[in-house]
Amino acid sequence: MPEFFDVVLGQRAYRRLKPDPVPDELVRRVLEAATHAPSAENHQPWEFVVVRDPAIRGAIGDLTRGLWDAAGREHSRGLPPRFFAAVDEWATGGLAAAPVHVVVCGDTTRCPEAQLASSIFPAVQNLLLASLAVGLGSLMSTLPVVNRDAFAPLLGLPAHVVPMALVPLGFPDRPLGPAGRDPVEAHLHLDRW
Amino acid sequence: MPEFFDVVLGQRAYRRLKPDPVPDELVRRVLEAATHAPSAENHQPWEFVVVRDPAIRGAIGDLTRGLWDAAGREHSRGLPPRFFAAVDEWATGGLAAAPVHVVVCGDTTRCPEAQLASSIFPAVQNLLLASLAVGLGSLMSTLPVVNRDAFAPLLGLPAHVVPMALVPLGFPDRPLGPAGRDPVEAHLHLDRW
Repeated sequence: MPEFFDVVLGQRAYRRLKPDPVPDELVRRVLEAATHAPSAENHQPWEFVVVRDPAIRGAIGDLTRGLWDAAGREHSRGLPPRFFAAVDEWATGGLAAAPVHVVVCGDTTRCPEAQLASSIFPAVQNLLLASLAVGLGSLMSTLPVVNRDAFAPLLGLPAHVVPMALVPLGFPDRPLGPAGRDPVEAHLHLDRW
Repeated sequence: MPEFFDVVLGQRAYRRLKPDPVPDELVRRVLEAATHAPSAENHQPWEFVVVRDPAIRGAIGDLTRGLWDAAGREHSRGLPPRFFAAVDEWATGGLAAAPVHVVVCGDTTRCPEAQLASSIFPAVQNLLLASLAVGLGSLMSTLPVVNRDAFAPLLGLPAHVVPMALVPLGFPDRPLGPAGRDPVEAHLHLDRW
């Protein structure tokens, strides 16, 4: 069992994943972790669509590549070159190749849409951390779901269900080192701004 | 060092906190965990205001109680009675009494406001989990910051900084048992809705 701070301080976005299948037991375990996140009034508005079907993953990949080609690539030109290249590779093929796509949705019958974010993204973070804890690689992307009208038909989502994020899962191609982060002091204020 | 899944599966909202001071070292540790969350293009748009000043905590408490009295209490009437009573006690005094308030903000110069949520709430979740891991109690509330124009002056926040959530920290009054959650299967869909 990994230690808490090893997982949290070691979190990275894994864009290159092996095509090997991910055991159901691991997927269930990371989803259980997701459902232990807090939500407004404990309404638990999350819904998870676990996509393994290659045709659907391909369609999600195609939609994402189209969004990347149309605007994302230009928007992200300012990234450091290696970071940009990794994202470009992911958006144009890596995503579709990930063996599992977990689509995290919010149910607006259990939480008003304007308040979904604070009840959904903590669950996504649990999902990401738990994936790393069981040896999987993952990342969160909102690009595939940014055009809700284009995305919803791919999974047959009803109108009251909002796709909020996509988390690809798979075994990492290779382990990554620690993340680059600013020191805490660069973002810290005492008592007042 | 606690194990990862013990912390994640044991998360609860701690509303009753002891007035005892929280060591700086613990606050720094939980903030470091927060900064290891993912953010869009690693822009790290989070800013943390750590409030210990009793006058400012009192003002935050007053603002929150006012929002609760004006609308929150009525909105939450449908909660189970014990849950409602705990929230009512918290909103009308418990919050102000917590020895530390961590106000988590988003910097719109580093991330467009419409995209802040997916880059801020994962950091809040890390902050909550890390608090539990070091023996503190915490919870996330968006109620104190829902009226941004009323909240910002309390901390002197500039216009480009959006208060997103408040996390009170303190040592728990007593330990809480496991959280009540639906089974994963109640929120799970395979390949399509």
